[in-house]
Amino acid sequence: MKWWGWGSPAKRVEVGPEAVAMLRSELGEAEPAECVRLEEVVVPAPRPLPGEVATTVGPAAVLDGHEHRVRRAAGRSYPDLIRLRAGRLEDAPDAVVLPGSVGEVTRILEICSREGIAVVPFGGGTSVVGGVEPLREGFERLLSLDLRRLRDVVVDRRSLTATLGPGLRGPEAEEALHAQGVTLGHFPQSFEYATIGGFAATRSAGQASSGYGRFDELVTSIALTAPAGDMRTLEIPHSAAGPALRELVLGSEGALGVITRVTARVRPLPERRRYEAWMAADFDSGAEMVRTLAQADVLPDVVRLSDQAETRVSLALSGTAGAKRALLSSYLRVRRRAGGCVIVCGWEGEPEAVERRHALSARVLRSGGAAALGRAPGRAWERGRYEGPYLRDELLDLGYLAETLETAHTWSRLGELYDAVRGAIGAALATQGTPGIVMCHLSHAYRDGASLYFTCLARRRPGAELEQWRAVKAAACEAIVETEGTITHHHAVGRDHTPYMRAEVGELGIEALRAIKERLDPVGIMNPGKLIP
Amino acid sequence: MKWWGWGSPAKRVEVGPEAVAMLRSELGEAEPAECVRLEEVVVPAPRPLPGEVATTVGPAAVLDGHEHRVRRAAGRSYPDLIRLRAGRLEDAPDAVVLPGSVGEVTRILEICSREGIAVVPFGGGTSVVGGVEPLREGFERLLSLDLRRLRDVVVDRRSLTATLGPGLRGPEAEEALHAQGVTLGHFPQSFEYATIGGFAATRSAGQASSGYGRFDELVTSIALTAPAGDMRTLEIPHSAAGPALRELVLGSEGALGVITRVTARVRPLPERRRYEAWMAADFDSGAEMVRTLAQADVLPDVVRLSDQAETRVSLALSGTAGAKRALLSSYLRVRRRAGGCVIVCGWEGEPEAVERRHALSARVLRSGGAAALGRAPGRAWERGRYEGPYLRDELLDLGYLAETLETAHTWSRLGELYDAVRGAIGAALATQGTPGIVMCHLSHAYRDGASLYFTCLARRRPGAELEQWRAVKAAACEAIVETEGTITHHHAVGRDHTPYMRAEVGELGIEALRAIKERLDPVGIMNPGKLIP
Repeated sequence: MKWWGWGSPAKRVEVGPEAVAMLRSELGEAEPAECVRLEEVVVPAPRPLPGEVATTVGPAAVLDGHEHRVRRAAGRSYPDLIRLRAGRLEDAPDAVVLPGSVGEVTRILEICSREGIAVVPFGGGTSVVGGVEPLREGFERLLSLDLRRLRDVVVDRRSLTATLGPGLRGPEAEEALHAQGVTLGHFPQSFEYATIGGFAATRSAGQASSGYGRFDELVTSIALTAPAGDMRTLEIPHSAAGPALRELVLGSEGALGVITRVTARVRPLPERRRYEAWMAADFDSGAEMVRTLAQADVLPDVVRLSDQAETRVSLALSGTAGAKRALLSSYLRVRRRAGGCVIVCGWEGEPEAVERRHALSARVLRSGGAAALGRAPGRAWERGRYEGPYLRDELLDLGYLAETLETAHTWSRLGELYDAVRGAIGAALATQGTPGIVMCHLSHAYRDGASLYFTCLARRRPGAELEQWRAVKAAACEAIVETEGTITHHHAVGRDHTPYMRAEVGELGIEALRAIKERLDPVGIMNPGKLIP
Repeated sequence: MKWWGWGSPAKRVEVGPEAVAMLRSELGEAEPAECVRLEEVVVPAPRPLPGEVATTVGPAAVLDGHEHRVRRAAGRSYPDLIRLRAGRLEDAPDAVVLPGSVGEVTRILEICSREGIAVVPFGGGTSVVGGVEPLREGFERLLSLDLRRLRDVVVDRRSLTATLGPGLRGPEAEEALHAQGVTLGHFPQSFEYATIGGFAATRSAGQASSGYGRFDELVTSIALTAPAGDMRTLEIPHSAAGPALRELVLGSEGALGVITRVTARVRPLPERRRYEAWMAADFDSGAEMVRTLAQADVLPDVVRLSDQAETRVSLALSGTAGAKRALLSSYLRVRRRAGGCVIVCGWEGEPEAVERRHALSARVLRSGGAAALGRAPGRAWERGRYEGPYLRDELLDLGYLAETLETAHTWSRLGELYDAVRGAIGAALATQGTPGIVMCHLSHAYRDGASLYFTCLARRRPGAELEQWRAVKAAACEAIVETEGTITHHHAVGRDHTPYMRAEVGELGIEALRAIKERLDPVGIMNPGKLIP
């Protein structure tokens, strides 16, 4: 991963000349964003850790070089990118520690509790909500606990579960599972870099969550090493033995302890994958189709409905020339629907089941008035499914802000939420003097509601990027809270959403979280400043 | 409900002469169990509650008559029945308080916290694990907080959710929902008497949970009134905003506060219901078929596989003459499979979907070697689905113990769990000098495992019923714990399973629960002696 952005430096998702022209015409000329050199990034001098740390994990597993510290000093949110490029990080961990076993995690947490050293568990570092920021909150020393050495994989073929180490990145986990003929089916946009521990700690939802389930739905058992000890839930399909402690550890974002093992449901590798696109006349009728699909139990495994703005802009920005052509030609065939909304659908599994389920979904789409665009744009979407964050770097190079955020609500209030958030982001950008494009897709559909995922594009305000971002973020969050949607459907709380947790769970909810935190982490060393205000 | 047993005194599920003969032949002659008269039941004199309680709810909503107190002094477990019939309850609430609003619940909890009065939330009183026993644990006074006046129903047709008061009994909730064309689809054996609040507090699972979902899966939002204040989760389909507090309230069994409102997913009323029975050669092959159904996503909405003992005894005990005849004739038609295992399957919903799903399930059952017994025995099962507890009273009248318990495990370890629990119960009964019949069905199937529901029958040991029961219960629980299954799949913890919670969730899990309990209920008035050891 590039130290200053997303993905391999070798991979670029180019923004073509037509797209640049479109951006300039709609958002105005922008000043390209520069990036300092790695050695120019300023971080405070590291404070030494107790010698016991190196004794515990071995000296080779304690890294305190400049690059190691910079790489764990920020996640991959838009403000993170701005700070990294400017070389102005508020702080960095004093060292990166790589435990080689659960026992070593236990001992490190003991040392840190005793010595008062903050600990930030680190997986892929892909948080877009400030989940791995090294906030000290009064602690003088802080270490990044990088879990990459905890990468066990044990598959139970009969029960279709896999027990996985937290440090496995998405592709590593899938490779090991594929060797045994199974898959998690968990493919969030961060898939290439994010880890199993991170998926669990943040309640990640993949693009195929309608079919395979969100990550928190896949988890059947979880183990947590907290400063106060170990907790693990039984490997069982379900229990009625009181409150679900598994659901306390899921979403705990490193603030209660370190997730050291996850057992999750897996599925046989799909023999067939059928992806295709449809075009709805407008967002409302498209949403109505998705609701019908969900409530009739015939949801595709992937379903995402882009609004008019996203449909139009995706087409213009589409990173893959082939994909763009494919979508464009389909689009032109149904050009009487100019202003329509694309629905990408995917079905995966055993061939007969895929075709049967496809037929049932297609019937709903057709009777809702959608026009089939065929498989080419579906395949194109699939090929480009991880490209969003690469594209964000390119846009920033060109001088444009690209920010995303997500929420969810019941079907009854989804339209209200859509209008409120879109309006709030648009107004905030205008107030910043950088009127932008606000677009949205509906995904992760449920019988009772769905998620809305917003993206906005605008001219970057050189030198005032963080102020500009904060205005947009605050406006969007306040609109969500006002409409009683959730502050996050699958990006988690991190630092950025912590101020809104009181609105999300109420005062007594906060107190319940605090009570658990104080019992499991009495000194408060675990990921300070996140999750609990 | 009969004060001393299950259901309306007008309804009896008779045990016919052939069944009695079978019981006598297999279990030995038994001494019929008597029952004292209501006025003979001994309970301590009620201690007066502060006048503020009556001022809060109104004098008519404070009941302290003998029958009211006896009716809230026990649930409906086997030991409860024994104590009720003997008129030897350890204790009873000092009064029954019926709050008429959430505000009244708040004020009652304030008074009780201040005055040190224990509170046992009371719904249908159907707990089979000692969930409503009036344990004082050091408090001098105890009141039963009967929630029957909290019975609001609000349906959101578009989102297919319903917001329900905790005091609604199963049939009341369904009647109100039917009027709006929807159903919860939650039909546990206790359906006729248990309440919405109880379903949520105990993580109830209905007989059709494979299709409609367990109750905890249906709940999208929940409100708790605790001594420390109110907590409510947003009405949203999902959130990644930290640990799921909804999952803390679900299963809280009145030990954290009072569940005052539940929002749950509903479904359109099924237009078609197709129930039928199949016969597998043996339990292992039947279990393999259910596993295949679950892992191929073609589970019927109801699926329960009885082992050979349960198949044989159900046939002999079958309460409904018609049902018995129907099952028997089918059974005889496939009598070459004597010693087989019945699988009851049910599909509900829109007719085309029912038939499509039936065909897919049937294909799996046929290729697993099951023989179709047709719809008559399926309908018979459906008619008798709530009869179990009525039958238990009849058996006790005849002098026989009938006890049930459930657990769950992954498919990989289900056989081991089955053998261990069956063996432990059988050995414990033999040691008591009352060798019995141990039978089991597999139900509530998941992709990764299933629940096992055991029933045992034996001669009652007159005068030593509780000792006999404790020996059986302890043996079963120890076998479950030893095999790392869950101590309860859907009956909850109550008093009876509390000693096994340490094995279930570990020492740190207990500490986490304690921390929450202490924050939400600082004086510890809520349902003392349950859930947390």
